[in-house]
Amino acid sequence: MVNSTTERRPGRRPGAPATREAILEAAREAFVASGYRAATIRGIAQAAGVDPALVMHFFGNKEGLFAEAMRPPFEPAAVLSAALATDPAAAGTAIARTFLEAWESSAQRRTLLGLVRSAVSEESAAMMLREGLLAGVERSLNELGADRPALRASLISSQLIGVAMARYMVRARGAAEATPAELAAAIGPTLQRYINGPLFEGGTA
Amino acid sequence: MVNSTTERRPGRRPGAPATREAILEAAREAFVASGYRAATIRGIAQAAGVDPALVMHFFGNKEGLFAEAMRPPFEPAAVLSAALATDPAAAGTAIARTFLEAWESSAQRRTLLGLVRSAVSEESAAMMLREGLLAGVERSLNELGADRPALRASLISSQLIGVAMARYMVRARGAAEATPAELAAAIGPTLQRYINGPLFEGGTA
Repeated sequence: MVNSTTERRPGRRPGAPATREAILEAAREAFVASGYRAATIRGIAQAAGVDPALVMHFFGNKEGLFAEAMRPPFEPAAVLSAALATDPAAAGTAIARTFLEAWESSAQRRTLLGLVRSAVSEESAAMMLREGLLAGVERSLNELGADRPALRASLISSQLIGVAMARYMVRARGAAEATPAELAAAIGPTLQRYINGPLFEGGTA
Repeated sequence: MVNSTTERRPGRRPGAPATREAILEAAREAFVASGYRAATIRGIAQAAGVDPALVMHFFGNKEGLFAEAMRPPFEPAAVLSAALATDPAAAGTAIARTFLEAWESSAQRRTLLGLVRSAVSEESAAMMLREGLLAGVERSLNELGADRPALRASLISSQLIGVAMARYMVRARGAAEATPAELAAAIGPTLQRYINGPLFEGGTA
């Protein structure tokens, strides 16, 4: 299948990073503009100037393509592990800072916006968020010996995504006018408690 | 205009609460299914079995109709004021409980889901959230004498909406499996700090 594709497009090697990147870029455009459900492999292939079979060859199916195209610019579990290795008591603010830095970059923000918009309305995108990103954070917290690692992972993501919504989507005045450093300092202690503090009021974690 | 409408539909009084409610119900259906932009006054009027002019008479324009149809089942500023009047030190958990109770009700959840889904992708819905809901919370915090009331209002909403996303939209395992009481206890101290605690790390609020 791949060979027949390349035979029709001489000079374009299917494994070439440029082709793969062109497909991912077309996929991002489509997923951000139309959402997961409405975007099609055929339409994305056409926009990238390749055969749909090549898209399948690279990414398996639409879900695989979505996962790759909308992969966040950072790996949450890796960010958490690195922050914990550096200074566990400052991990909350460090994670907030990394997260907000990614959103402040306009290219990365576009991917992140598409991911959140898809996740609030489409099960496939929600599943990717659940299984691809949250599961890794839960594993890290579990290794740390935290009680209720799944709940902690949810709470961490809830505060991070909530702040991104307030600043970049709803553009609530207070969140939009604050500096990223102020926001990181404000939500840092929240994340810190969700990582390794007492989870419930009164400290009965 | 209203009279001509009722003349064509004898027995149906334009001011009748049932008619108004039928329009609101049709509007909710349309906004949740299609989003703010795609929904039309004409389509909503047709679904409710009334003349478009009657919709305009009741709600002024599409924005007014959206604001009324998607009005959350609680008034955030009123919930905050009541919680502060009862026990300022327990306000965070009280607000979390009221918020989660509304989401647990399936009828109310539908409205709230439509509101959040619209707000992450459509400016008109985002504006309603900003100006209709957040502004009231900001005023309450300002009366309380809090520093940075706009930022505090954003942070409170960020944690609340973030938890709703985690539990009801993404259905992250930890947030979905916890009881509403556990979630309220877990985010209560966070909200409490955003209401009247030191906002930035180290207490330099």
